[in-house]
Amino acid sequence: MASTFKPILFLLLSIYTFSPVSSHQHHPLDPLTPSEFNLVRTIVEKSFPNPNPYNLTFQYIGLDEPDKPTVLSWLSNPASKPPPRRAFVITRMERKSHEIMVDLSARSIVSNKVYNGHGYPLLTSNEQVVAATKLPQKYKPFIESIKKRRLNFSDVVCSTYSIGWFGEVKSKRVLKLLCFYKEGTVNLYLRPLEGITLVVDLDEMKIVEYFDRFIIPVPKAEGTEYQASKQKPPFGPRLNGAAFVQPNGSGFKIDGHTVRTNEELIIMPYASGKGRGRTQPFADCPSNAVFLDAYYAASDGTPVKTSNTFCIFERYAGDIMWRHTELGIPNEIITEVRPEVSLVVRMVATVGNYDYVLDWEFKPSGSIKFGVGLTGVLEVKGATYTHTDQVKEDIHGTLLSENTIGVYHDHFLTYHLDLDVDGKDNSFVKNNLETIRVTDGSSPRKSYWTVVSETAKTESDARINLVSKPSELVVVNPNKKTKIGNNVGYRLIPGPVTHALLSYDDYPQIRGAFTNNDVWVTPYNKSEKWAGGLFTDRSRGDDTLAVWSLRNRKIENEDIVMWYTIGFHHVPSQEDFPVMPTLSGGFELRPTNFFERNAVLKTRAISRVHLPNCTTRP
Amino acid sequence: MASTFKPILFLLLSIYTFSPVSSHQHHPLDPLTPSEFNLVRTIVEKSFPNPNPYNLTFQYIGLDEPDKPTVLSWLSNPASKPPPRRAFVITRMERKSHEIMVDLSARSIVSNKVYNGHGYPLLTSNEQVVAATKLPQKYKPFIESIKKRRLNFSDVVCSTYSIGWFGEVKSKRVLKLLCFYKEGTVNLYLRPLEGITLVVDLDEMKIVEYFDRFIIPVPKAEGTEYQASKQKPPFGPRLNGAAFVQPNGSGFKIDGHTVRTNEELIIMPYASGKGRGRTQPFADCPSNAVFLDAYYAASDGTPVKTSNTFCIFERYAGDIMWRHTELGIPNEIITEVRPEVSLVVRMVATVGNYDYVLDWEFKPSGSIKFGVGLTGVLEVKGATYTHTDQVKEDIHGTLLSENTIGVYHDHFLTYHLDLDVDGKDNSFVKNNLETIRVTDGSSPRKSYWTVVSETAKTESDARINLVSKPSELVVVNPNKKTKIGNNVGYRLIPGPVTHALLSYDDYPQIRGAFTNNDVWVTPYNKSEKWAGGLFTDRSRGDDTLAVWSLRNRKIENEDIVMWYTIGFHHVPSQEDFPVMPTLSGGFELRPTNFFERNAVLKTRAISRVHLPNCTTRP
Repeated sequence: MASTFKPILFLLLSIYTFSPVSSHQHHPLDPLTPSEFNLVRTIVEKSFPNPNPYNLTFQYIGLDEPDKPTVLSWLSNPASKPPPRRAFVITRMERKSHEIMVDLSARSIVSNKVYNGHGYPLLTSNEQVVAATKLPQKYKPFIESIKKRRLNFSDVVCSTYSIGWFGEVKSKRVLKLLCFYKEGTVNLYLRPLEGITLVVDLDEMKIVEYFDRFIIPVPKAEGTEYQASKQKPPFGPRLNGAAFVQPNGSGFKIDGHTVRTNEELIIMPYASGKGRGRTQPFADCPSNAVFLDAYYAASDGTPVKTSNTFCIFERYAGDIMWRHTELGIPNEIITEVRPEVSLVVRMVATVGNYDYVLDWEFKPSGSIKFGVGLTGVLEVKGATYTHTDQVKEDIHGTLLSENTIGVYHDHFLTYHLDLDVDGKDNSFVKNNLETIRVTDGSSPRKSYWTVVSETAKTESDARINLVSKPSELVVVNPNKKTKIGNNVGYRLIPGPVTHALLSYDDYPQIRGAFTNNDVWVTPYNKSEKWAGGLFTDRSRGDDTLAVWSLRNRKIENEDIVMWYTIGFHHVPSQEDFPVMPTLSGGFELRPTNFFERNAVLKTRAISRVHLPNCTTRP
Repeated sequence: MASTFKPILFLLLSIYTFSPVSSHQHHPLDPLTPSEFNLVRTIVEKSFPNPNPYNLTFQYIGLDEPDKPTVLSWLSNPASKPPPRRAFVITRMERKSHEIMVDLSARSIVSNKVYNGHGYPLLTSNEQVVAATKLPQKYKPFIESIKKRRLNFSDVVCSTYSIGWFGEVKSKRVLKLLCFYKEGTVNLYLRPLEGITLVVDLDEMKIVEYFDRFIIPVPKAEGTEYQASKQKPPFGPRLNGAAFVQPNGSGFKIDGHTVRTNEELIIMPYASGKGRGRTQPFADCPSNAVFLDAYYAASDGTPVKTSNTFCIFERYAGDIMWRHTELGIPNEIITEVRPEVSLVVRMVATVGNYDYVLDWEFKPSGSIKFGVGLTGVLEVKGATYTHTDQVKEDIHGTLLSENTIGVYHDHFLTYHLDLDVDGKDNSFVKNNLETIRVTDGSSPRKSYWTVVSETAKTESDARINLVSKPSELVVVNPNKKTKIGNNVGYRLIPGPVTHALLSYDDYPQIRGAFTNNDVWVTPYNKSEKWAGGLFTDRSRGDDTLAVWSLRNRKIENEDIVMWYTIGFHHVPSQEDFPVMPTLSGGFELRPTNFFERNAVLKTRAISRVHLPNCTTRP
């Protein structure tokens, strides 16, 4: 029987690295602890003494993962000494980005490399807050603009936006500020101050460009509020005392950063998330959830705790894991049903106006489902229109409310799936579903379909457009077979497919060229983790998955990584106002000849006697 | 505000009509009651007196739905007299199929039409049981074949299979029997007796053809059993006392066949299901479910009760209905989250070896999700192979176990979606997402995308291949607008797309030509309800959705029906043996400018104090 499966899955989306908190080291992939963050800071600050400490900022501190063979070797003998702990650090010093490797055991810097590419590193929370809150406050032309619009300055809130790249030969480390009016609402994103743009140089930390181009009405506050405390009756229903309860306890245990379930499946969730994650008990996750805190590094290198960053819970949605009613045996009716309980690891990432609910669902059958839910507040633009009858041009959006256009936009989430299917060396197989014409008169049938397998030899064989050809895509271990002789594998079950709509030569698409295909496969390379490159801010698309893949490396019977993109084209509707009902997407990795048979055949049936007694809380 | 939405949705899959049981009439679409079934039988038997009662069989008895204007008129004044009750009946009499309309109030036959097409009506349970169990028992050549194979005759079970049509000029009302060996297992479908085929003439009720072509080993019983009582430890986990509990009661009420939720959304689930539905409390549906019984007509016209045919439950899967964390306001963090509780109406249809879990999920936001779960037992064919190394030909399947090939196959489920979006007259709009090239130098951008709307005028405009063009498909009411001026609508959110792989001229594809497109729109026509035609057995494809649509009727601002097909290509894997983990598909209908704003904005938040106290049942 195909045995150990260790999904080491990385979720691609970056700004902060969240580190679930742990008291002692268990695993080489455990995130950095608060004291390790502090140690990194001390080592780096000592090595780069600087009269002005503000000239050194920590854009990123995270674990430098040991090489995969080292991790695999430790896993084969977890009692052995774990590999040395290292941290990967990105700093800005004197207008340069440094990539620094720190050895935490030796308390020394292993390497320090100045990055010479076009992009800029992850932004710190601190520099964004300073840029958005301190600079406009003192910028006279901006104060004038607000006055001219007869708005209360104290109700103006600005927010940072990356500028991107549109072919400029020279680009600086600058951000754009757009501002909003929070008078009468907390839903500031629905009240944009159109016409005003401030450009901030982050290295100088000052406003370097300013535009006040036109004045149009600010959309009204009425109807934008979403806080429960501000709503007036009649109210809709709530859960009304209903809950998923587990009076006998849960079916999983958390040991450090390892989650063990009854099935002895070992899972190591490890996520990096863009935006600030913080789940709210009893609302973002059900009442049976366990919450994990995390740490990230502030711009001065000190650890910052975020509470309830992840939650882990058993999910029972009333779904059926498998069933059959047998009516074919005379005088006998047999019905066997097994309800499905899965394990969900959830993080919510808020990125400005949008909230992304990121789920990893581990099913007892061995399937792994990846879900993303999009909710939060729309990005809107102000307009003079108060009715669609007035609109005679392409407004690039939907008129949602008076003076409010919900802008057409896209979301793409690219997953870095470092599968090791029963071992490190895997192959990517396209099981093409092909129509065969019957022409020899052997049958009255004119056609049938069958499977023609094709193993991808190099990266170009594995750039997949999912709609061009019906195919089952499987990552197999070509060195391991089931008893009956099938290659063990995990199959990709895609969700609905959404392709990028921009032309390939358009700058945003050059930077986001990793969305040119739905699926890519690359050989494992520690430095190729973020599909858009590590230095994405103002990047020019020269360090993306699409570029790496051009090397057309060998991927057959190698340690490979599969990349999958979930996409959404969002045409807003009035239902998305003032806060959006969740829109969901996802995909599944499903065992395919990985097990000798249905892995949940022997799950026990349930009956009424297993149900709990419940009363309303007094 | 767009107000009443009355989804009258019909699920396409036929053999029996299930009639949820009711004590008194509430609604013109309520299914027939047991006494109405009996009345229909009496009226028909009296009108067609026959010396031999076995010459008259009831292939189908169900409600003849009143014309839609009649229903809508009653709905506008439910206190008025309901329209007269009528039944639609299909009988076989003297080798002819009759379509009979019975007026239940006048106790008379309104019309009797002899069907002259090529197909045959729905099969009765009785004729299938007689054909499968009685005829082979006495058929000497078959008894010889079993003896020759040294098998116990008492462990042989036969099952009926429709024969289809492969271009024959003349076809009779015949069925095929394939047989299985249940010795040592209840999983008979995994032990096929290959080589043997019996053909039964249903009108004669006798075996008219017999083939014993070859002998190969019957796959062994070992490892095929799925009953809990037959499993040996170690067992997998079960729910272990966990449950979704509602100590304060549920959020919906059932009144006759109408379900009312707290939001005053009125739902009228009405389903016809192929196969025998029967959900098992606490397993097929969660412990908070309410179960509904149903009736169908036996071949002699008497009502047969099926218990727990449907279940209705509130589903809380830990999902988030909407949320936002606002971090942009200085010195304030606002988080608002609303968990999602939806209402699920479920039926499980067992069709021989396969079990289909059919869910309609009604979300508080107004979305309706249609889910189908495929589980049960695979169709396999026996083979001499015991290892894949021996396979040198296309075996049209996967070797799952010794002598057992899981055959490649498809599933297509076509939904008949009779939407009346805020009124009867609707239009089908393709909101095409089009890439616009920027060539005038007005921007550094090279492209953007926008929405170009196109209203389908006739049926040919609405034959949609979902992958050919990115488009949002919306059913709108062109006569109703929101305050701000958008047409009220409901949008189709497709699931993953699966197209038929057979050539268009192949007989099965001619009969299943309704799968040639993913979406079709037709004008409402009471007689066009089943995409494959009403007389599907041995049909020739001359009465399918694809043929009706050729008339290219007007569908703009008309009462229209949208048809959507969910498809699966199934390449079996060892995990599907001996019983399949559920594979799911589905799609969603989501309000799009139907409401003036987010319909669940005012749903109340929950907190810990709302949670129940629970203990294990003693």
